[in-house]
Amino acid sequence: MGIAGYTFAKFSIEQSIAMMKRIAVTDLSLKDIHLPVNSSDAQIASALAKYKEGGINIYTVGVIYMKTKEAVDAAFAYAKKVGVTMIVGVPNYDLIEYSEQKVKEYDIKLAIHNHGPEDALYPAPSDVYNRIKNLDARMGMCIDIGHSLRAGTLPEKAIKMYKDRLFDIHIKDINSATKDGKGIEIGRGVININAVIESLKKINYTGYCSIEFEKDMTDPLPGIAESIGYFKGVMNSED
Amino acid sequence: MGIAGYTFAKFSIEQSIAMMKRIAVTDLSLKDIHLPVNSSDAQIASALAKYKEGGINIYTVGVIYMKTKEAVDAAFAYAKKVGVTMIVGVPNYDLIEYSEQKVKEYDIKLAIHNHGPEDALYPAPSDVYNRIKNLDARMGMCIDIGHSLRAGTLPEKAIKMYKDRLFDIHIKDINSATKDGKGIEIGRGVININAVIESLKKINYTGYCSIEFEKDMTDPLPGIAESIGYFKGVMNSED
Repeated sequence: MGIAGYTFAKFSIEQSIAMMKRIAVTDLSLKDIHLPVNSSDAQIASALAKYKEGGINIYTVGVIYMKTKEAVDAAFAYAKKVGVTMIVGVPNYDLIEYSEQKVKEYDIKLAIHNHGPEDALYPAPSDVYNRIKNLDARMGMCIDIGHSLRAGTLPEKAIKMYKDRLFDIHIKDINSATKDGKGIEIGRGVININAVIESLKKINYTGYCSIEFEKDMTDPLPGIAESIGYFKGVMNSED
Repeated sequence: MGIAGYTFAKFSIEQSIAMMKRIAVTDLSLKDIHLPVNSSDAQIASALAKYKEGGINIYTVGVIYMKTKEAVDAAFAYAKKVGVTMIVGVPNYDLIEYSEQKVKEYDIKLAIHNHGPEDALYPAPSDVYNRIKNLDARMGMCIDIGHSLRAGTLPEKAIKMYKDRLFDIHIKDINSATKDGKGIEIGRGVININAVIESLKKINYTGYCSIEFEKDMTDPLPGIAESIGYFKGVMNSED
């Protein structure tokens, strides 16, 4: 289990670490809110030292939006400096090929993130998969299960269909399987968490499942804790 | 799902209600910390009004210790005024028979609570059951799964063995199956929550399962939330 850094959008690195300690989660998808892509080497070193001292493992960076070649360059240079082997990102269509070149150059994977029906680029997991399925095997996807369902795709199906390119998952729940569905504590919403976990077990998924909690963003800890508890409870009881 | 009031020992009624709202739990085992047994009618009415306005259902009172006849009398009079049909209590052995008389007089059930190896009266569930099994059917037990395991009794077994007298359950987890085991978030400890829930389903348990969280008592909300999430996750995925 991990945490998607956007969950801590309203908090400092120190505050995020304190919250992660409370829920006993050590793996983080670092969001640029906490360490901008254009940070200096000294700023990167300082942030990494804080996470390291806090016992936090940064397993990826993202979600990083890439609208220009320069942004792609910057993202890969940043990922290398941070020391991760994967970027969760959103490249414009016309930058996918260029991103693939960078993936090869850096040997850093790119997991493209779907963002729901209002996203012009990648509303559903299929919008990612169809654009990367024939590219380098290090081009993959981060399925956001909430945005997936809002876009009309059952995440438990997407996980199975796109298993060969599934590098990362953002887990959450939503209060309605519609475009306007809002984030809610896992277990209280409409996502079939049992089915999602069954699918993950079926494909022998070995990546992270990172909670992205987008409710009560100024006081998210109880909701994060309930979400992580629920997910672990299902995970530990499904055969 | 409910909450055992001791969880909120360090908080006011208003603060407890606010926390229960965050975790979407409405059923409370009212502890005398929040409404002493010797409260006046006006004090009782005032407290009940707060809970009612907060949407909280007080399904029982307790744990109430009864060391004298007067304490038994007071507990039953109090339970009647609060409007519950059950007391979770700990009567001295020589008051069990007198308590049974009161149970009949008031038609209020008594669920005797086990409190672990250091408890001189009821360390394990069997210490309750053996003393009430031949009494009025409204004499029963509240199994505390943490104290049960600390006393050497697997709670999943106790639930099945004592099902005919099982009126209430305090759920929690502990970090060690020993006398010195301490409270911890459900799912992080040594209690086999899957087995506990399987047993509850097997006996078609219809009572409450109330979280009693005894860690971080000055800031318990994240731990309560994680615990309730975990328990619900297992409950919703076990067949």
